[in-house]
Amino acid sequence: MERHFEREFEELKERLLWMGGLVERAVHRATHSVLDADGALGKEVLAGEDAVNEMQLEIDERVTQLLALHQPMASDLRFLLAVTRINADLERIGDQAVNIAESADRILRHPQVKPYVDLPRMSELAEGMVRDSLNALVRRDVELAKNVLLRDDQVDRLRDQVFRELLTYMMADPGTIQRALALILISRNIERIADHATNIAEDVIFLVEAKDVRHHHQEAEAK
Amino acid sequence: MERHFEREFEELKERLLWMGGLVERAVHRATHSVLDADGALGKEVLAGEDAVNEMQLEIDERVTQLLALHQPMASDLRFLLAVTRINADLERIGDQAVNIAESADRILRHPQVKPYVDLPRMSELAEGMVRDSLNALVRRDVELAKNVLLRDDQVDRLRDQVFRELLTYMMADPGTIQRALALILISRNIERIADHATNIAEDVIFLVEAKDVRHHHQEAEAK
Repeated sequence: MERHFEREFEELKERLLWMGGLVERAVHRATHSVLDADGALGKEVLAGEDAVNEMQLEIDERVTQLLALHQPMASDLRFLLAVTRINADLERIGDQAVNIAESADRILRHPQVKPYVDLPRMSELAEGMVRDSLNALVRRDVELAKNVLLRDDQVDRLRDQVFRELLTYMMADPGTIQRALALILISRNIERIADHATNIAEDVIFLVEAKDVRHHHQEAEAK
Repeated sequence: MERHFEREFEELKERLLWMGGLVERAVHRATHSVLDADGALGKEVLAGEDAVNEMQLEIDERVTQLLALHQPMASDLRFLLAVTRINADLERIGDQAVNIAESADRILRHPQVKPYVDLPRMSELAEGMVRDSLNALVRRDVELAKNVLLRDDQVDRLRDQVFRELLTYMMADPGTIQRALALILISRNIERIADHATNIAEDVIFLVEAKDVRHHHQEAEAK
């Protein structure tokens, strides 16, 4: 690889990790805005949305330029394609954090339906998945990436548990319906964050092992 | 452009439109499975999921090969990058159709909560957006793509209307909570289909006008 190209690659990776950091913090603040009833945290997420969007455009612009100028082959090409996909997933994780922050704003005006038990576990899991999918990218660590894929099933189980429990609250007391519904939608947002982390982990495996694992990891686990 | 390359480009576009056709039909069948209480339609969607996933992998593989073999410049490069993004959005639209078909299966076991009014309008709008975003791609029609962006606001308004109306049913009769919740989640799935169509329309504008409109169209509309 040309030396100049190599430096641009490193810069690109740093920008992507910066983007990852922005998004991780947004997720943390958004979920804790709900869990700790802290409206100020949610507002920080909304204030940071533009920065995430601008970063996505900047990263895609860099990728397009690198592709056009250097016409990279094989593994460099795979890396650049993975970066655009990961970039899109990170931006969508940021969108979910914004959705959660907006719901938090509405929820916090009313008393809490119930003590939160599964929701904190679910959001911690999802946050850890985002963090580890990016760690896996940095270290080119396929085992860590595969571990992220496994954790997605735990998130789905918690989502179902949250749903069932809140349903019983709603049935018992229709006065809780609106707040319970908001919490159910928040659990769906967290589920989608975990899904995007799963996409990133799959891209890391694709990158390192040079094969496309999308749509195949369920089968692999079943063995 | 080399003649060989040109043929491969045409083939790629045809495969993407084939994928689009698969996904459009999946959305139509999934929503009508709910609206017409037709469980068989939903089962067809579930049976077709693998074909959509395989098509996504095939298209991405073609793009990677074209990038590696022909090292395209400028507008061809933009086209290939747009194809991978549109491909990912189409696959996610297919995922939403699967979610709707799965919900349909659960809903159809119970009597209908209420006559559907806004949900059919919402799903027709979303279907039209998917269709027109692909038409805009084929015809390189920026005006049509911009029209898709405008329709996304209508979908969001219908989503809020569906939510508010079902909420009143749930409050009045807790016996409807589970079915009403399922319908609310279906309306969210349809909303996400419209969001993906919006992403595709933005990619078409990016492709034709060679500028990135993502994160900017709201501002443009506000003027």
